[in-house]
Amino acid sequence: MPKPHSHLVPSRSAKRAHYDQESIYSILDEALFCTISYSVDNRPFSIPTSFVRYEDKIYIHGSVGSHFIREIEKGIPVCITVMLTDALVVAKSAFSHSVNYRSVVIFAQAEKIEDITRKTESFEWLTNKIVPGSWEYLRPIKDNEVRKTTSLAFSLDEASAKIRTGMPNDEEEDKPLPIWSGLIPLQTNRLTPISDDLSKEIPLPAHLSHL
Amino acid sequence: MPKPHSHLVPSRSAKRAHYDQESIYSILDEALFCTISYSVDNRPFSIPTSFVRYEDKIYIHGSVGSHFIREIEKGIPVCITVMLTDALVVAKSAFSHSVNYRSVVIFAQAEKIEDITRKTESFEWLTNKIVPGSWEYLRPIKDNEVRKTTSLAFSLDEASAKIRTGMPNDEEEDKPLPIWSGLIPLQTNRLTPISDDLSKEIPLPAHLSHL
Repeated sequence: MPKPHSHLVPSRSAKRAHYDQESIYSILDEALFCTISYSVDNRPFSIPTSFVRYEDKIYIHGSVGSHFIREIEKGIPVCITVMLTDALVVAKSAFSHSVNYRSVVIFAQAEKIEDITRKTESFEWLTNKIVPGSWEYLRPIKDNEVRKTTSLAFSLDEASAKIRTGMPNDEEEDKPLPIWSGLIPLQTNRLTPISDDLSKEIPLPAHLSHL
Repeated sequence: MPKPHSHLVPSRSAKRAHYDQESIYSILDEALFCTISYSVDNRPFSIPTSFVRYEDKIYIHGSVGSHFIREIEKGIPVCITVMLTDALVVAKSAFSHSVNYRSVVIFAQAEKIEDITRKTESFEWLTNKIVPGSWEYLRPIKDNEVRKTTSLAFSLDEASAKIRTGMPNDEEEDKPLPIWSGLIPLQTNRLTPISDDLSKEIPLPAHLSHL
């Protein structure tokens, strides 16, 4: 049987699918951004945004006036994708090239968070995910900021993960070829923070001092 | 007038929109992956995949048997998003946090590439984008590999870019606060290649030796 052909497209082959909570949560907790897509009159729209997982849901935030937010807060079906890329998989043939990735796809509908305490908590979760330890340090959030922001939750009931790891799967007849094959690891780093002019005299807080 | 509220959601405000070819092309040429979304019966689906720009189109590849490819090769409307994240924008309040990003959104329909020469060229463009200089070094592509792969092109006629750069836009009354604000740059690097066991005795080719 021919092996699934990937060509750098994350394969839909079942062997890469994972439905366990641990795989799904670990990808969602590492990724800062997702892409949310939705349909209007059978036309697709999608937008990248930051998100945070808390317990069995993910949360996003947006301006109450945003067109995107106003569409999806209606509870229409959305598809949310998250992808982390770990390595380029360099085979002996272009055909067998691939990518080591960890991705999650979620099918869900928005649940609008109206409760002010839970809404404020969801800002805290997102802020502390993007910059760990920062929420308590920042100027406290104001009521009107909470009011101007919509918080939407999405269930993870219909979430699945796909993961590719390991070396290239070269064709048998290609394996003896004197062509280099292997992985080029990809790594995203946070670099040394750059102060705003407003903050030149202010020491970097403890939660950023490791950067 | 209140400033647009971003909260880590790429803003839809007009001041960030760019329609010039140079901005759009430079983002598309730097990003390795896009997310393609499409609708079936008004339900959204999306999938991350690699892509390459060549002249005024982008190209993706997939297995002729892939469900995703067979849906979008019909020429239904798709929305393609690309996002590069340059920095986390750390303000004095959680509310004014943002992200420096460069994104492109494309509305298009797939054009299936049937011409064998152009199809093979599109594999060359993608391979050389992912691993620059590699196409000539690899085992040449075979006719049956080209036949097993679908190549789809998408026009950039309806493409736009959004770009945020610079420091946080803190509220006037927050600016004097003794709270650190600035940027945390994000950088994705290619690390030292890791040889497959099959390639332990094979020298790293010149096009990878800088890694």
